[in-house]
Amino acid sequence: MAQGNDLERIASGVRSGDKAQISRALNLIEDKRREREREVAELLGLLERGERALGHRVGLTGPPGVGKSSLVAALARELRARGKTVGVVAVDPSSMRSGGALLGDRARMAFDPSDKGLFVRSLATQGALGGLAHATHAAAEVLAAAYDIVLVETVGVGQTEIAVTHVSDTVVLVVQPGSGDVLQFLKAGVMEIPDLLVVNKADHGPTATRAASDLKAALSTLRQVGAGDGEQDVILTSARDQLGIDKLAEALEKHARSLGRAGILARRQGGRVEWASDWLERSVGSLGVEALGGADTVRGELERAVVRGELPLSVAQRLVDRISFATRAP
Amino acid sequence: MAQGNDLERIASGVRSGDKAQISRALNLIEDKRREREREVAELLGLLERGERALGHRVGLTGPPGVGKSSLVAALARELRARGKTVGVVAVDPSSMRSGGALLGDRARMAFDPSDKGLFVRSLATQGALGGLAHATHAAAEVLAAAYDIVLVETVGVGQTEIAVTHVSDTVVLVVQPGSGDVLQFLKAGVMEIPDLLVVNKADHGPTATRAASDLKAALSTLRQVGAGDGEQDVILTSARDQLGIDKLAEALEKHARSLGRAGILARRQGGRVEWASDWLERSVGSLGVEALGGADTVRGELERAVVRGELPLSVAQRLVDRISFATRAP
Repeated sequence: MAQGNDLERIASGVRSGDKAQISRALNLIEDKRREREREVAELLGLLERGERALGHRVGLTGPPGVGKSSLVAALARELRARGKTVGVVAVDPSSMRSGGALLGDRARMAFDPSDKGLFVRSLATQGALGGLAHATHAAAEVLAAAYDIVLVETVGVGQTEIAVTHVSDTVVLVVQPGSGDVLQFLKAGVMEIPDLLVVNKADHGPTATRAASDLKAALSTLRQVGAGDGEQDVILTSARDQLGIDKLAEALEKHARSLGRAGILARRQGGRVEWASDWLERSVGSLGVEALGGADTVRGELERAVVRGELPLSVAQRLVDRISFATRAP
Repeated sequence: MAQGNDLERIASGVRSGDKAQISRALNLIEDKRREREREVAELLGLLERGERALGHRVGLTGPPGVGKSSLVAALARELRARGKTVGVVAVDPSSMRSGGALLGDRARMAFDPSDKGLFVRSLATQGALGGLAHATHAAAEVLAAAYDIVLVETVGVGQTEIAVTHVSDTVVLVVQPGSGDVLQFLKAGVMEIPDLLVVNKADHGPTATRAASDLKAALSTLRQVGAGDGEQDVILTSARDQLGIDKLAEALEKHARSLGRAGILARRQGGRVEWASDWLERSVGSLGVEALGGADTVRGELERAVVRGELPLSVAQRLVDRISFATRAP
């Protein structure tokens, strides 16, 4: 479908903020066919060589139910009002299972389709690169080549496998008042240490203020045990009442400034190495399964083992033993 | 280390509930050396051929902070009092990062070391089979060959990658009163649909009762959209005050009875196929990385690509292209 000149047309369209070409790039990323992987890698390489490949990637993460979607919508509006162009990628693992029926509010983010400086896309499929984490990473790279700021919204816990630190220059953890669990997550190292903390639904008044001071205390604890620098800002917002959104926009700008172009580059490059190294291992794994006849064949063999009363793991071991790897010189 | 006759000695020790041999089996599982994988698979195969390989595997999952550890300790005591032998495997991803310093209460589960019918082990390393999920699965299989009931305690969300349904015949979701987030997790499909729901810390009184009715409502919603059978029991417990622990033990027995030996076998076999299929893909991936010179070499190549201004993903693609797979006939 997209080859050579076509990929160059997409790349130059992305760089100039042409929404049709940006959509084509994201379609390519969401396409599950294996041959698309090479095209995605090539496209990202083309974008990398362009001038505008350094939009500020902001990852917004946190448990379900804290109002991330509304916050992202309000933040996008605020950033537009400040003259920034904005790309939004919302990662929705739930819609992979439920078809999105249960979390319908994702679609409710209202935006003006004629606004050329705002692009919103929801990712739900695993995509060509195998794994939602890979698709998210690729989508964030594409949008960062097109817009000043990229907001990546993800469920911060669960089966998303997304290391939000690898796709973000600034990590924002969003919680709601009364989030004792979140402190536990942070302390347990289950949740990534954020650059910025947001207590959303701050219209709840005193509870929100208490939550904010709880978080400050938690961060100070983390600093004492050497995790995180403990100097993160804690911001109270209410997406519903448009409270604190301006402060959040300013804090993001402040963090980008403190990183500087060099800092953003360093974060991006570190994230890319993690990404590529994970992608490589997965790719080899899935090519190996193909060499064995494909996933269905392998699963069939394992299921027949169960029927025969064998341990599937032993059969898997025998199958792996059947593969030999040869490497050509570089 | 452990070969042939030695593995048979471990297997027969495990089957007869010899704690020293059970510990050796778990040490083998936690051993990170690659050659151990084969021994673990062989050991599980030996256990599979034994008589007593069908202990009831109960997975207890839920967010951090809901008191799972105390609940598991109380439940283990109750089951012992009912004459059941009990194996406990606690999965602690946090200790991989923090060395366990932050979540020290894990170690506080008090038990009588002279009790031959109770075995408790905490898993924190990735182990030979690559991935905590694999180590947990193997440990649950070992304990299920030794004890009547195996309690697998895991953090239900986060970076554990553990599909608790694959290691459990009965999945118990533990929450605390006021767990709106948990409902969201369930609805979003981020959390597995449990067979049994426990609202722990029920000493909180009316809040706990409200949480229980919230959960019942949520399950009824799930049933309406076709996820889960919606007929799960909801049990109020207080590990601190020893409330409801007897009801939980009875509900577990009831669920095991409703599954029957055939149902438990079917769940076990289904889980094993998932496990083996995931293990196979990971093994091939990691063997491929070894064929390229090992993880450090690969990472070095990717990091040099960054320095040269290349996209690591393109380099990863080139590295994958250098591998060719050959398969021998079965």
